[in-house]
Amino acid sequence: MSAKFQPFTTEYEFDTGKLNPEGRVIVRKLSHMKEMYLDQKAVEERVEEDPLIYEVYNVELPETMAHIQHCTTILYPGKIGNEYFMTKGHYHEILDRAEIYFCLKGKGQLIMQTKEGDFKKLEMVPGTIAYVAPEWAHRTVNTGDEPFIFFAAYPGDAGHDYGGIETEGFVKLSVEENGEQKLIDNPRYQKV
Amino acid sequence: MSAKFQPFTTEYEFDTGKLNPEGRVIVRKLSHMKEMYLDQKAVEERVEEDPLIYEVYNVELPETMAHIQHCTTILYPGKIGNEYFMTKGHYHEILDRAEIYFCLKGKGQLIMQTKEGDFKKLEMVPGTIAYVAPEWAHRTVNTGDEPFIFFAAYPGDAGHDYGGIETEGFVKLSVEENGEQKLIDNPRYQKV
Ligand SMILES: [Mn+2]
Ligand SMILES: [Mn+2]
Repeated sequence: MSAKFQPFTTEYEFDTGKLNPEGRVIVRKLSHMKEMYLDQKAVEERVEEDPLIYEVYNVELPETMAHIQHCTTILYPGKIGNEYFMTKGHYHEILDRAEIYFCLKGKGQLIMQTKEGDFKKLEMVPGTIAYVAPEWAHRTVNTGDEPFIFFAAYPGDAGHDYGGIETEGFVKLSVEENGEQKLIDNPRYQKV
Repeated sequence: MSAKFQPFTTEYEFDTGKLNPEGRVIVRKLSHMKEMYLDQKAVEERVEEDPLIYEVYNVELPETMAHIQHCTTILYPGKIGNEYFMTKGHYHEILDRAEIYFCLKGKGQLIMQTKEGDFKKLEMVPGTIAYVAPEWAHRTVNTGDEPFIFFAAYPGDAGHDYGGIETEGFVKLSVEENGEQKLIDNPRYQKV
């Protein structure tokens, strides 16, 4: 056998959204993303309990453009104040790299923006394949009552830039008002 | 709004494996791949009927490395002689490009080989995520009784090289012998 990178399989568990083997697991609790929620009083009230917001199961691969990174995300249902549980969101370190999200369970939103201030929201239910076009920062939001689970694939060399979007903030926030989901302007958003 | 490539969604239909919108559809019947089956007498007997072997629904995207190509394949059940219905198989035009297959329905095999003659077979059932490592030619085989359906994602610039594998032939063929699936050596295989 040659010294080439070998093919292999990973099993996706339809019930839980987890991978087997688990790969590199990222666990994000409220304490890891306190500053991202608008209602800081609600954050303070919940941070001791420190709810689990989301988990990512990553197949481990070299970070070169020959490869396709892939992972599943389990985003739990809940709110901090009236803002839905969400992922941190990021640009790709190599900005010009796309990503695919394939929703397998639950429901939610994919919110995206560019450095120029464009904003876009896509609704996701099982079977929705959402295309994060190159140059768009992306965050998912669980607007349902059960875990929102999706499979993602992106170019091997894309990388993650969390700092850029942390500085800007997202243009809009997804909140519940009078029992209904709404997007509101983020008063802390600032174009860099 | 800036002139950037815009995000969008495609709906995957869990029952049929089709996409909505359908995108670019590839339809492969026996007449499109006559030479690939070993039993040429069986091919001649079936080619008038010209059974549908597989369909691919492709989301249309630019062929650059910023993008992630994605598609679903519906590979029908059946045999030509004792050889299972299969895809043509290909290397990527840029050889050093991987691919992910996510099985959603049915069962089958992913057979792969390198130009050096390495061979590898992976079994796929719903939930199996198979990783076609860079430099491996790849073909799928339906070894079950229902459509074998999988979602695929690969780098935008990968391209398809069908000619290389057509000249070589696959190292092994997947056939049914006495009601059981077997891999047999392909007498027509020749390392280029
Ligand atoms: Mn990403
Ligand atoms: Mn391919």
